[in-house]
This record gives sequence, C-alpha cells and structure tokens, in this order.
Amino acid sequence: MNNLDLPPSLPIEPLTREAFTPFGEVIETEGAHAFPINQGTTTRFHDLCRVDVSDEGGKAILSIFRGTPRPHPIEIKMLERHPLGSQAFFPLNPEPWLAVVALSTPDGAAPDLNSLRCFRANPQQGVNYAKGVWHHPLLCLAPRQDFLIIDRDGSGNNLEEIEIALRLISPSED
Amino acid sequence: MNNLDLPPSLPIEPLTREAFTPFGEVIETEGAHAFPINQGTTTRFHDLCRVDVSDEGGKAILSIFRGTPRPHPIEIKMLERHPLGSQAFFPLNPEPWLAVVALSTPDGAAPDLNSLRCFRANPQQGVNYAKGVWHHPLLCLAPRQDFLIIDRDGSGNNLEEIEIALRLISPSED
Repeated sequence: MNNLDLPPSLPIEPLTREAFTPFGEVIETEGAHAFPINQGTTTRFHDLCRVDVSDEGGKAILSIFRGTPRPHPIEIKMLERHPLGSQAFFPLNPEPWLAVVALSTPDGAAPDLNSLRCFRANPQQGVNYAKGVWHHPLLCLAPRQDFLIIDRDGSGNNLEEIEIALRLISPSED
Repeated sequence: MNNLDLPPSLPIEPLTREAFTPFGEVIETEGAHAFPINQGTTTRFHDLCRVDVSDEGGKAILSIFRGTPRPHPIEIKMLERHPLGSQAFFPLNPEPWLAVVALSTPDGAAPDLNSLRCFRANPQQGVNYAKGVWHHPLLCLAPRQDFLIIDRDGSGNNLEEIEIALRLISPSED
C-alpha cells in the first residue's frame, strides 16, 4: 500500500485502556487499583502508569505544558518519539483533548502509517506514551489547556521527529 | 520552649516559593523557567521540582489521591515523613488546600514543633515535599479534591509517623 491509497482523514476514537495498550497506558481513576490512606480521609489510586526514564542515567522530571489549539481541520504531518523515556500527560483543565499515536515499522525505523490512530481523551484522562512510541505533539481543543508532564531528563538523544503523509482531523465532526 | 509554651492554634500563611524553600518546592507556572515547544503552540514550564526518589533503588511512580476534608477546626496531632523520597502534590480541581510542614530537630529524630507552619496553596499551586521533610497528610478544603502525586516506589522503609502536641487550624478564619 502506498501513501496515495491511504485515507486523508483520521477518525477520532474514544480513549480506552484496552485500545491504548499498544502505545502505553491511560491514566485515570476509573478501574484503577485503589486503597484508603491518611486515616481513611484519602483514596490512593496507585501507580497508574509505567514511568520508564532510567535509560542512560535519565531521571524523572515534572513540568507543566500550556497548550493552545491548532487550526481546524488539524493537519497531522509529523510525528515524534522519545527513544530513551516515557512521557506522561495529565490535563489540569476539565476539557477533552486528542492523542495521535502510531506503532513502528518492523525494522523500528519509522512509524507504520497503517497503525496511525487518534484518540479523544475525556477531561479526566491522561496518557503515558511508552518509551519509543510515535506520537503527535500535544493537541488540545480548548483555547488554553495545561497538562502536568512526567518525562525524562538526562544525557543522550531523546527526540526523533519524522515527516509523514498528511492526515486531517476534524474534531467538530466527532 | 516546651510544648506547653506553644500556641494551640496554627496560623495560615500564603504559600510562596520563598517561604516554602526549607521544605521543598512550590510547583507553579508563575515565575518558572519556560520556553516554547511544539511548533510554538505549547509553552513548557520546565522541571518544576526536584524528584528525588532513587535512594535504595527507588523509582518515581504517578498516582492520584482523592482527598476529603477533615472536621473544622482541623486537628493536627501527627506528622509523617518519607526518608527515602520526595513527594509531589498537584491539585486537579481548582480549589485551595493546606500544607502543614515542620523541620527536624538538630538530631534529625523528630519534628521541631517551633518550626511547624501551615501554608494555604492556591488552586494553581502544588508542592513537592523534599525527602525527609515532616508534613501532615493531605488537607483539602473542598468536599472532594483530586491530586496528581509523584513519589517513590521501592524497597526500604519510606514512612515514619509521629504523634505531636495538638494544634488547631481554623480555615474559616483565614
């Protein structure tokens, strides 16, 4: 299949733990392992994703990303991946947002465009992109949305970017 | 000064980076190191606190705490500390909350009650308790408040608790 045979528009799917499994984890309280702490006043939803950042002496850091929306329809024309570490996103404003991901080709060199998917996260859902998973940079839908980010700091090249054949996403048609 | 000389009521102070420095870091975008990423669509407020969890082979984990309020006035009668790792709290609901902290006595064995302080965090502020800093378990003011937590998972004893002379906090008088 060559690029001319690929659809130009990418459908939007609801984000679920099961659907996202090949790409990392959904971060959410629903269905999570939980137990009471703090004299029963607090529920701990425990260890919600795999923070995988220790390759080549890396360590976890906490940052905030403040995202703004792209013009509609959203043009997907590049993907990136972090070969040395996972990257977790959790929304700090109660708005939905989009996560675009792809698996790698068998030789690991590039995204397999047949595996490209777009998930719509609800306002209580974050995601953790597993180490090396191709994804599009942040796609928020609100005029401004903050996210808490847990990713890797350390030496080594932890960013690869690649141009891909254009796909369009039309959130208004969701 | 012995415990009988200590005031029974703990004043509430606004949370600022400067005031919290002896106890860890305030996690907030205001005043943080920031730069544009993602083709200029996103601002990254970078590396907002010291995630310090690697002692004895520990690693960072991401959890969510769902807190409920205590009866008013709030009774502070114990503190805890995590000798092997930092613990970061960031609110997921736009409500203020309280952080009660203390320094250790010179021998490191117990909290110095003369250093006990109560900070009121605004809805856009989290804190990172530095490794070994005495603090009270989560004190939220709203009927229910969720927090994203970054702390340590691993072997070893990472929890100490100690009873202290009762202090009262009256958030309604703040």
